[in-house]
Amino acid sequence: MSGRPEASCAHRGPPVVGIVGAGQLARMLCESASALGIGVVVMAERAAEAATPAAGALVEGSPRDGNDLRALAERCDALTFDHELVDLPSLAALASAGVAVRPGVQTLEVAVDKSTMRHRLAASGVPVPPFVDLPGPAQGDAVVAVDDFAAAHGWPVVLKAARGGYDGRGVWPVADPAAARSVVAGAAASGTPMLVEALVPLDAELAVLVARSPSGESVVWPAVETAQVDGVCREVLVPGSLDRDVLGRAGDLGHQVAEVTGSLGVLAVELFWTGAELLVNEVAARPHNSGHWTIEGSVTSQFENHLRAVLDLPLGATTLTAPAVASVNVFGAEDGSEPSEGLREALSVPGAHVHLYGKRARPGRKLGHVTICGSRADDVRTRAWTAAVALGTPVPAGLGLGLEAS
Amino acid sequence: MSGRPEASCAHRGPPVVGIVGAGQLARMLCESASALGIGVVVMAERAAEAATPAAGALVEGSPRDGNDLRALAERCDALTFDHELVDLPSLAALASAGVAVRPGVQTLEVAVDKSTMRHRLAASGVPVPPFVDLPGPAQGDAVVAVDDFAAAHGWPVVLKAARGGYDGRGVWPVADPAAARSVVAGAAASGTPMLVEALVPLDAELAVLVARSPSGESVVWPAVETAQVDGVCREVLVPGSLDRDVLGRAGDLGHQVAEVTGSLGVLAVELFWTGAELLVNEVAARPHNSGHWTIEGSVTSQFENHLRAVLDLPLGATTLTAPAVASVNVFGAEDGSEPSEGLREALSVPGAHVHLYGKRARPGRKLGHVTICGSRADDVRTRAWTAAVALGTPVPAGLGLGLEAS
Repeated sequence: MSGRPEASCAHRGPPVVGIVGAGQLARMLCESASALGIGVVVMAERAAEAATPAAGALVEGSPRDGNDLRALAERCDALTFDHELVDLPSLAALASAGVAVRPGVQTLEVAVDKSTMRHRLAASGVPVPPFVDLPGPAQGDAVVAVDDFAAAHGWPVVLKAARGGYDGRGVWPVADPAAARSVVAGAAASGTPMLVEALVPLDAELAVLVARSPSGESVVWPAVETAQVDGVCREVLVPGSLDRDVLGRAGDLGHQVAEVTGSLGVLAVELFWTGAELLVNEVAARPHNSGHWTIEGSVTSQFENHLRAVLDLPLGATTLTAPAVASVNVFGAEDGSEPSEGLREALSVPGAHVHLYGKRARPGRKLGHVTICGSRADDVRTRAWTAAVALGTPVPAGLGLGLEAS
Repeated sequence: MSGRPEASCAHRGPPVVGIVGAGQLARMLCESASALGIGVVVMAERAAEAATPAAGALVEGSPRDGNDLRALAERCDALTFDHELVDLPSLAALASAGVAVRPGVQTLEVAVDKSTMRHRLAASGVPVPPFVDLPGPAQGDAVVAVDDFAAAHGWPVVLKAARGGYDGRGVWPVADPAAARSVVAGAAASGTPMLVEALVPLDAELAVLVARSPSGESVVWPAVETAQVDGVCREVLVPGSLDRDVLGRAGDLGHQVAEVTGSLGVLAVELFWTGAELLVNEVAARPHNSGHWTIEGSVTSQFENHLRAVLDLPLGATTLTAPAVASVNVFGAEDGSEPSEGLREALSVPGAHVHLYGKRARPGRKLGHVTICGSRADDVRTRAWTAAVALGTPVPAGLGLGLEAS
């Protein structure tokens, strides 16, 4: 055959992606890479992590060690990330030396710091909740600043650590100055910069995923409705109960955030829907829990499109494979039992796509997810929860599930 | 939660499957096992095989060495196979000692020997082409036996090695006694037992896959139409062009063969459609090339259901995810180039699910496959071929593809 373009990488054979971090996102990237025949080298901090069994090649190293990052880059055509807790100056040096760091350092700077993210988005006209940075101990009285903010926006407010939080950690709703004082004192002890935000009255939470490649191609998956309990995502419903118009605007905002942050690879944007407006809450510059449903529910999964974007290959279609998709997270049972003990029962649920990440079970730890594709929203949701509960997931109150509590 | 049944395996944690052989079937089993959180130990003859990067754990060993098989079994809850070329007496000893060998030795005996298979199926009323075993050199003149057979059934006939053939190897259509003599002489030199079969006039070839579990559950995927060139499968079309009635009868025959052979795990049955009747051609007691489309085209893939069956877990639904599915094999380009050189072009084909097996490229070697799901049979077929050709696959004559030859 004539006219086949040359592969973008210098070496012969399939391209190789280096993945910094070895959690479940890396594991699912590895599964996708294996199907595509793309090589992966995973850098893990310990030998036994979620991605270990699925990694084509594994190196031990620290994401905060420039030498380790350089050694990984030398084996790969592009570097990408399972998490954002990476030494950014080292990455910037690698990028300057010509390494394909995807997402780039500028995007990671936005993703790792809630204050930077809020300022960058607000400056570009992306709607975000009202917020201000709190002064550090040397700069002024943070509690006074919280009080001033609440005077304008009302109690309660939300205090947030600018860095290091996830799954509800580093986020403290506070109802009064005394509660604010307690949180601020703790943050001062740890030296964490903080911000204060208005507690937005929510009708719903949404997430939208965008994949964007270096050559400028971008695709967006249909926006989804998510349900959090204590700041932790418990279920993802596609398309969920919101108006098509709201979902469409969420998709547009996702595209806008991807452009503003210059993301490469998958970007996840979590949004609040107040009933009147959409506000961007969080941004993650990687595949995201709110997109696990795409493995079966979309023509191309977030993991495959992340790899394709990172290697600047054409992106795949993001259309749904079914009218309704539900994905429910699996958490460790209260009794500490392994989710695999419930595998038989979970797989007896019709159409259950069970994903377990191979992580050691601990009560409340995120250990997997279950996706169901079907024709009716209530049916796929019930089935997904039934399977997740069979795998040990405690039933949260407040989601109106009508399942027996565990 | 109360009432969760105990896991079937004695150790705590997820079940572990031992896979004998490390080709692409093992690789795709590993991808599926990773998603389910099931452990795998792959036994490979060499360190670098298709399944190596995807294997959670890898041991080197020979499928013809009883000690290697026993060592593998000791690490696993069940043993299964990437191919049938395994020492059956050693497996029988392991099974007697309580190892879950799946499929069992009796099924493998049928699958590895075309003569045994034909006799077993014929004795159970399963339609097969007319055949006779040929005498070995010590038993009589094989060429006379071929001549006698052809006198009854007409020339040409098909000579087959009872063992060791695959992808068209070990199968020789012969048009006259001189050609038969030449093949028989070669077989005598290698000591291969042979059979002779009528060359059945074909309208089409079909394949049907059945998954069957130790507890007696069995599921069948919709029968598919396959196209072979020189005995090698080039494309799989779902549902293909045959009458629904014929496809339904093929499914019934698949179930019947699974029962007759007592298969555990996936069994693939290849059939001839003469325009008037269905005849069973080949049986493979493992996931099969004719079922790769199930990864995206069916709710549960053959690889997942094989693992589920092997571990006696409930089997998943085999319904289609789209009205039309086409899967086309990727073969090494004539110029020896790597398929990954065409990855960019292949992924630009809308909806192309590219699977590359990580095998070293050689002209004509099976290196991957591409699946497309859609609504129109001709459209998905054309797209799948376009992507496969982009990956270097030579275009075969005789399939009426209307694509430029490579």
